[in-house]
Amino acid sequence: MDDDSVRSESLPTLDEVARVAGVSRATASRAINGGDKVSQKSRDAVEAAVLALGYAPNPAARSLVTRRTDSVALVVPEPDDRVFSDPFFARTLRGVSRVLGARDLQLVLLLTGPGKEEQRMLRYLRNRHIDGAIVVSHHREDHLSDHLAAMGLPCVFVGRPWTSADKVAYVDTDNIAGGNAATEALVQRGCRRIGTIAGPPDMTAGVDRLLGWRMAMNQARLSDDAVVHGDFTEAGGEAAAEQLLREHPDLDGLAVASDLMALGALRALARAGRRVPDDVAVVGYDDLGVAERTSPPLTTVHAPVGDMADQAARLLLEQLDDGSRPRAMRIVFPPSLVRRASA
Amino acid sequence: MDDDSVRSESLPTLDEVARVAGVSRATASRAINGGDKVSQKSRDAVEAAVLALGYAPNPAARSLVTRRTDSVALVVPEPDDRVFSDPFFARTLRGVSRVLGARDLQLVLLLTGPGKEEQRMLRYLRNRHIDGAIVVSHHREDHLSDHLAAMGLPCVFVGRPWTSADKVAYVDTDNIAGGNAATEALVQRGCRRIGTIAGPPDMTAGVDRLLGWRMAMNQARLSDDAVVHGDFTEAGGEAAAEQLLREHPDLDGLAVASDLMALGALRALARAGRRVPDDVAVVGYDDLGVAERTSPPLTTVHAPVGDMADQAARLLLEQLDDGSRPRAMRIVFPPSLVRRASA
Repeated sequence: MDDDSVRSESLPTLDEVARVAGVSRATASRAINGGDKVSQKSRDAVEAAVLALGYAPNPAARSLVTRRTDSVALVVPEPDDRVFSDPFFARTLRGVSRVLGARDLQLVLLLTGPGKEEQRMLRYLRNRHIDGAIVVSHHREDHLSDHLAAMGLPCVFVGRPWTSADKVAYVDTDNIAGGNAATEALVQRGCRRIGTIAGPPDMTAGVDRLLGWRMAMNQARLSDDAVVHGDFTEAGGEAAAEQLLREHPDLDGLAVASDLMALGALRALARAGRRVPDDVAVVGYDDLGVAERTSPPLTTVHAPVGDMADQAARLLLEQLDDGSRPRAMRIVFPPSLVRRASA
Repeated sequence: MDDDSVRSESLPTLDEVARVAGVSRATASRAINGGDKVSQKSRDAVEAAVLALGYAPNPAARSLVTRRTDSVALVVPEPDDRVFSDPFFARTLRGVSRVLGARDLQLVLLLTGPGKEEQRMLRYLRNRHIDGAIVVSHHREDHLSDHLAAMGLPCVFVGRPWTSADKVAYVDTDNIAGGNAATEALVQRGCRRIGTIAGPPDMTAGVDRLLGWRMAMNQARLSDDAVVHGDFTEAGGEAAAEQLLREHPDLDGLAVASDLMALGALRALARAGRRVPDDVAVVGYDDLGVAERTSPPLTTVHAPVGDMADQAARLLLEQLDDGSRPRAMRIVFPPSLVRRASA
């Protein structure tokens, strides 16, 4: 690093702001601190100087005036750091970052487990260290939607929250329709003993996809007893498939609630000597890159995660622009079946 | 969620704090806002009431007084979200979280690419939205160590910073010694045409491990021309190994600067029909779980990432406890070779 760039990092002073704006130090101070005895012209000049110099007044003082931190939290109430290896998370993060970054908002990632960690995070939100929050990977026990609705913080959930769904904004895909479509594809190709590896029962995506499977099974008058819950990970899917094969050796179709779990299930099926799709047809869920690289490639349900992240960020920006008022509304995307080789 | 817990989420007021503390509202306010006309006894009572109720005064006002946010940033100046799939990152995150969580500090994750994103993040740090920062995955171009040293923010780097290493705190392992040990293990088993897949040339871990390889090669009077740089990912390692095999078909040993890259290299070697370790012996670097699960399991250099994260968090806490003064010091762990089947 050369000397020039080091020098440019020294903190600009209020005097410099005043000099660049062509006003007195007192006027610059009043303009920055929200005093009302400053002309609009001076105020504009000071603001331009502050931006040009990257001047940071005592930040707490500024925040006291503006009530803005220009940062937004991505809250991940997920104690398990395996969340990182899920492409759903990476895709959501990328989408949200892009939209917020274009508005020069700093994205702050808050990962938190239950109990004391959750209390700390709620205190952080309540103290308004951030202007708003986007929540992903929400679980039933965290009651985050109730907490956020109660504290009146602008927020958007990615995935329908368990409670207070009528009090907060959220984006989602229609997971019931998706689970239904996946299962109908198996019924239509002639499968009759169709099991499912469901998602976690404490996440709405898990419960809704399972409900969609059950609706399709009942509609086709097939038995809906071959259900095992997984944890949305590859290892969880592998263990669940082993259990299903043990308990229902006549299995000829398998609807899996995520592609990562389906990847594990394919490994269990291969080890058990079952050909896919000839012996057991498999349909996954997500279509975030994993499905194209499995062997055989997965027929799956496409969840438009990029669009969801995009819309979540936009819904939050709208609340921030509208006087930082939280708003209850929802955007739901329809799922679509993507046919590959596994079913 | 029942009604009680919803009610408990309503914000406690200053009146409640005063009532619980047994003081007047005015006294409670002065105690909270740092006025000096309050007895120590009242001040203690108010503090206890604030803690018991979880009272959040206007947070900007409080921050103005205490200059503390009780949050700490984990800064990841890594534009590529593949960083998430690297066990190094997950392990560091877990270690840092544990230590900071025990002190009730909120960890805030800041991911940032170059250019505008970096400017925004620096402004966020400069405005003291956080009390201190831990930096991982630092690259040469980000000049983060210069910036942080210049702004006088308590900070700790995980991995030696490129510049200002004498001005900031950091924890590291001796990557030169590690690269050297990996290569010597190959020399000792009789390999004579030893290549290396080095890490990124803009990260100190990449450059230092390569230097260690070169030292061992020169010491053994072997040619040190078989070098390809990878990006610490599995795919990068696979491509680098293909290139090395193409350019140096007589390769009989391979020192790889990360286990993830070694995993990719093993795949390339298998595809080329080279047996490991009989045709080409391979040594990895990191030992964070990946090395045990490869086929064959990897002989590798153990980097004590959990200990590093732990010490990084402790070094930061010491700076925060010491009047939030940054301090230049370093903690360096020795590496150790772990022998498995690949070499």
